[in-house]
Amino acid sequence: MLLFLTLLHGAESRAQQTIAERLGYPRDAKLLIVHADDLGMAHSVNAATIKAFEAGLVNSGSIMVPCPWLSEIAAYARSNPQADLGLHLTLTSEWISFRWGPVSPRDRVTSLLDKDGYFYLTESEAAAHADPKQVELEITAQIERARALGIQPTHLDSHMGTLYQNKDLFEVFLRVARSQKLPVRVAKTWFTRPDFLPSTLNPDDVYIDRTLDINQSVPASDWSKFYSDAIKKLEPGVTELVIHLAYDDAEMRGATFNHPDWGAAWRQRDFDFFTSDAFRKLLQENQIKLITWRELGKLIK
Amino acid sequence: MLLFLTLLHGAESRAQQTIAERLGYPRDAKLLIVHADDLGMAHSVNAATIKAFEAGLVNSGSIMVPCPWLSEIAAYARSNPQADLGLHLTLTSEWISFRWGPVSPRDRVTSLLDKDGYFYLTESEAAAHADPKQVELEITAQIERARALGIQPTHLDSHMGTLYQNKDLFEVFLRVARSQKLPVRVAKTWFTRPDFLPSTLNPDDVYIDRTLDINQSVPASDWSKFYSDAIKKLEPGVTELVIHLAYDDAEMRGATFNHPDWGAAWRQRDFDFFTSDAFRKLLQENQIKLITWRELGKLIK
Repeated sequence: MLLFLTLLHGAESRAQQTIAERLGYPRDAKLLIVHADDLGMAHSVNAATIKAFEAGLVNSGSIMVPCPWLSEIAAYARSNPQADLGLHLTLTSEWISFRWGPVSPRDRVTSLLDKDGYFYLTESEAAAHADPKQVELEITAQIERARALGIQPTHLDSHMGTLYQNKDLFEVFLRVARSQKLPVRVAKTWFTRPDFLPSTLNPDDVYIDRTLDINQSVPASDWSKFYSDAIKKLEPGVTELVIHLAYDDAEMRGATFNHPDWGAAWRQRDFDFFTSDAFRKLLQENQIKLITWRELGKLIK
Repeated sequence: MLLFLTLLHGAESRAQQTIAERLGYPRDAKLLIVHADDLGMAHSVNAATIKAFEAGLVNSGSIMVPCPWLSEIAAYARSNPQADLGLHLTLTSEWISFRWGPVSPRDRVTSLLDKDGYFYLTESEAAAHADPKQVELEITAQIERARALGIQPTHLDSHMGTLYQNKDLFEVFLRVARSQKLPVRVAKTWFTRPDFLPSTLNPDDVYIDRTLDINQSVPASDWSKFYSDAIKKLEPGVTELVIHLAYDDAEMRGATFNHPDWGAAWRQRDFDFFTSDAFRKLLQENQIKLITWRELGKLIK
């Protein structure tokens, strides 16, 4: 009975603890992960993100296993085992001049492929066609290939949010993440959006307070202002700032020529801001502490 | 009997005719195909080669179907149906930071894959492991994907020469090419090298007199001299000048960082020479006529 009460008490207090407290920080600490998506996609993405890692303020990222430049970022991961690198599980291929497809045998994941044999262009098309069993096969194959190349992922997220598009896909995602004992990009602030989120999560799952990202409504001239304001207003708890780094070079312009949103110039603006002294000062002035998914992963039993 | 003699006479005279004569040119005509390999591999390759096509002196090229930038060059092919584009059938993935794999389901072409699930790095590894039945499946899938994307190939060749590495592979290559009624890059001057070549070819097969390409022994400073000398000494008949175009930019440097041979600067030198006025003048001064694989393909019954 005492044991039962103790366990119950432990569960209750864990439920009441914030994620900041579970990590050992005060409840009012402002904790930030500065996370670059889309590693492996293109040389420009890899080169800019590695440069930003070296500059010291971008401290996390996630890798797209099906993409052509995986080997380059896998070599970086092997040489930098302390780097906070997760997998950006990929079920879409969104640029029209430059495409990729599955890691698993394509005749076993036909529900994931468009008429040309690549992943679908959009997350809504991908989710509408995806057989969850085939999704499980493919994302497991992506994790296995990453591990075979010497990447030890610290977390999982989902390129273009495909795995959050419906409950069936999200359950596959959670099941795979739990079996791998890896934390997943999920935020408390999302709980009102896809209504299936709270019911699929367990009290033991590790999730953060919020994510933060720029969007198409922000004009290029307001890039720094958007991020500066967001940092000044940062609330206590764990925030993941989701960014997209690359150089505005020929390769990225070729890939994103018809799509300025998340395009070459967009990614260069992100690179410029997150490697700037202005960003460094903002973090200091606002008492923001950088943390990583590696710390969050240690909370998983 | 008369018919038999006529047929025999036809076969004999065709056997005695040079390929130049079969094309309707005088026996002493100097006919040249200026052919850029590796389309689809990278944006830099596509962009430089399209620019060279537009400059007018590079008049043929071949496409790597398994590579990430296939869609970009397929769009060019659909918009430019007169372009002389073939398929550069691909069974190797030679850059270590940047890789690709099969078009067919990977569990059905396991003999073509290295331990990381990509094509082998070298043509000798690829040929040593390749099951000819799986090669036939894969190159047929490459041709089918190209056609599905609206590419109407005028010819076939083999990236890094993998399909010429042994008789079994070459027989697969010829069988597929004959069934597609497409000419294959084969030259009479090669007949002394792989000794299986003459015995596998039929009198009806279309092949050219020689190929010509630069190699690692030529220092960068002698690039123009090598090509100029070769053009001045060009022998009568059909020659294919096999070149590799790209810009010396970040993407190509990233791909070829450890491999200056056929690397970024090499390809920029090729681009510079084959879009130059010097090359145009050399063609004029030496009475060289440009022809394409499309003309050669018309000889196939």
